[in-house]
Amino acid sequence: MTAEIHLLHGDRPPSLDPMMALVAADMNEVNSVILDRMQSEVPLIPELAGHLIAGGGKRMRPMLTLACGKLLDYPGRRHCKLAAAVEFIHTATLLHDDVVDKSDLRRGRKTANLIWGNSASVLVGDFLFSRAFEVMVEDGSLKVLKILSRASAVIAEGEVNQLSAQRRIETSEDQYLAIINAKTAELFAAACKIAAVVAERDEATEAALDAYGRNLGIAFQLVDDAIDYVSDAETMGKGVGDDFRDGKVTLPVILAYARGDAAEREFWQLAITGHRTSDEDLAHATSLLHKHDTIADTLARARHYGQRAVDAIGGFRASQAKATLTEAVAFAVARAY
Amino acid sequence: MTAEIHLLHGDRPPSLDPMMALVAADMNEVNSVILDRMQSEVPLIPELAGHLIAGGGKRMRPMLTLACGKLLDYPGRRHCKLAAAVEFIHTATLLHDDVVDKSDLRRGRKTANLIWGNSASVLVGDFLFSRAFEVMVEDGSLKVLKILSRASAVIAEGEVNQLSAQRRIETSEDQYLAIINAKTAELFAAACKIAAVVAERDEATEAALDAYGRNLGIAFQLVDDAIDYVSDAETMGKGVGDDFRDGKVTLPVILAYARGDAAEREFWQLAITGHRTSDEDLAHATSLLHKHDTIADTLARARHYGQRAVDAIGGFRASQAKATLTEAVAFAVARAY
Repeated sequence: MTAEIHLLHGDRPPSLDPMMALVAADMNEVNSVILDRMQSEVPLIPELAGHLIAGGGKRMRPMLTLACGKLLDYPGRRHCKLAAAVEFIHTATLLHDDVVDKSDLRRGRKTANLIWGNSASVLVGDFLFSRAFEVMVEDGSLKVLKILSRASAVIAEGEVNQLSAQRRIETSEDQYLAIINAKTAELFAAACKIAAVVAERDEATEAALDAYGRNLGIAFQLVDDAIDYVSDAETMGKGVGDDFRDGKVTLPVILAYARGDAAEREFWQLAITGHRTSDEDLAHATSLLHKHDTIADTLARARHYGQRAVDAIGGFRASQAKATLTEAVAFAVARAY
Repeated sequence: MTAEIHLLHGDRPPSLDPMMALVAADMNEVNSVILDRMQSEVPLIPELAGHLIAGGGKRMRPMLTLACGKLLDYPGRRHCKLAAAVEFIHTATLLHDDVVDKSDLRRGRKTANLIWGNSASVLVGDFLFSRAFEVMVEDGSLKVLKILSRASAVIAEGEVNQLSAQRRIETSEDQYLAIINAKTAELFAAACKIAAVVAERDEATEAALDAYGRNLGIAFQLVDDAIDYVSDAETMGKGVGDDFRDGKVTLPVILAYARGDAAEREFWQLAITGHRTSDEDLAHATSLLHKHDTIADTLARARHYGQRAVDAIGGFRASQAKATLTEAVAFAVARAY
């Protein structure tokens, strides 16, 4: 099913383990920076930030910065500090997302807003966001600052756009793609691209890593949105059907609505506006998704973007780093199975 | 009552009008930058941001940047763009503050969170905050970026600290000062200091403007906290007694608690923890503040910091700009009357 992605790891299931092993030493340094820079004399800040940062995330984005550094044989240490800044930006957006979505669970654990309240989540998110910029300013590259300040604005824009599209069943695939490009793929792209900046490579290299990260990010989000209808709380760390109940119009729904008959469309209209959200309604929705193959087709779309990610770094010479970046794509698109 | 502040404006009441007149042309440019840079393809962003930004604020912080530019005879235009960034940071914190405080009114108008909901306020705040950094990166001064990224982190830290102190009657005057220094005075200080940076003045000048802004900010917040117990919705733009009902322990209360007998302390304990918040309780609280002169003494503290602000710029030669900066202090401390 992932055969379209040209795999380098033979018969075992794709995994992030090889990438983690490759960057383990650098990641230790990233973790030190994270722990050091999330400190504050106000105890609630490290307490709340630590819950999320230490709470079992994959560190996907900083890992990409580090792996791209390896890909470019970057000999310096600057990317470790910047990778920590990227993780701070990501953590800040998660804290604010959970407030916006009124989430109770993330990665299988209680969310910060559930434990400490919305106010603390908003303000500690602001702190982490500001701290990310302080760390970038210490590094001193205006080019990196430009990439990540722009990414932050685009992410927020994407989140507002998503909020505006919520409960609107007429959302198009193009609008949906614009939203996930902004809210998810932009930071993946920036995380990869800054490795090229610190390694002082040419614009073509920057563009290649941007394209790798961006397409991986889109694939990643497409699979996430599919998983929301097929997984359960244990594998996903959040409840199945969350998007459905929140009235989030993701690609599986967009396709099912487009392919549905009048009765089905009326059901989707009621469901997405919050008038059909029982467990039976969710079961009916899921049956419609399967009837029209929209989970499978969402995953096919994900493989398309995954393949583009792999091809974006096709020009780099073969290396262990390139192999792990390729396998990360295969892992991202294989998660649903 | 404001006689301790050495006034230059004779017998008329102190006003911000002379400062506004002095910087009017520059402020037009700031407003253009603000309007231009709050645009987005996502319509909700300019809609919500415009409500607050166009909603009759005094533009106190950017005005200070501009007036300090005049004080230093800065001939350039960079400070206009940076003043817009300062206003964006301020607006982002207001949007998030109103979510944290569940406010319904600001400057006499409905708050954005009341109209568009908490989610939109959080996310548009994030957008404005990111946009502020984009604007600063365009300016290109790492020194300005350092000052304002640090200020942003300190503000967020102060807000979290305030949240932790909320409903804790044992908050000390020192803790309170640390909170208002962070949440209010830090951005006043930064707004003034960056004028010295763009004008390429020495560190002593930076420090003088930092001290001016910081002490003005503390005075400003002290008076705000006094006004919360003496004003009404019309003059203040928010309801009287908001801090009381929110369990915010401000200086008038800290002093009344310290000077009160056992029965009064028990009342404060119950009130601040949210168990005595009726209109009668507020009337009783206000009577206790007056009994112990704590409104008057809070305003006396404000005049102390106001005087320090005036003296911090004492070394600059006499000029119209210096006169307006001095009068701004007198205005800030005279607002309660």
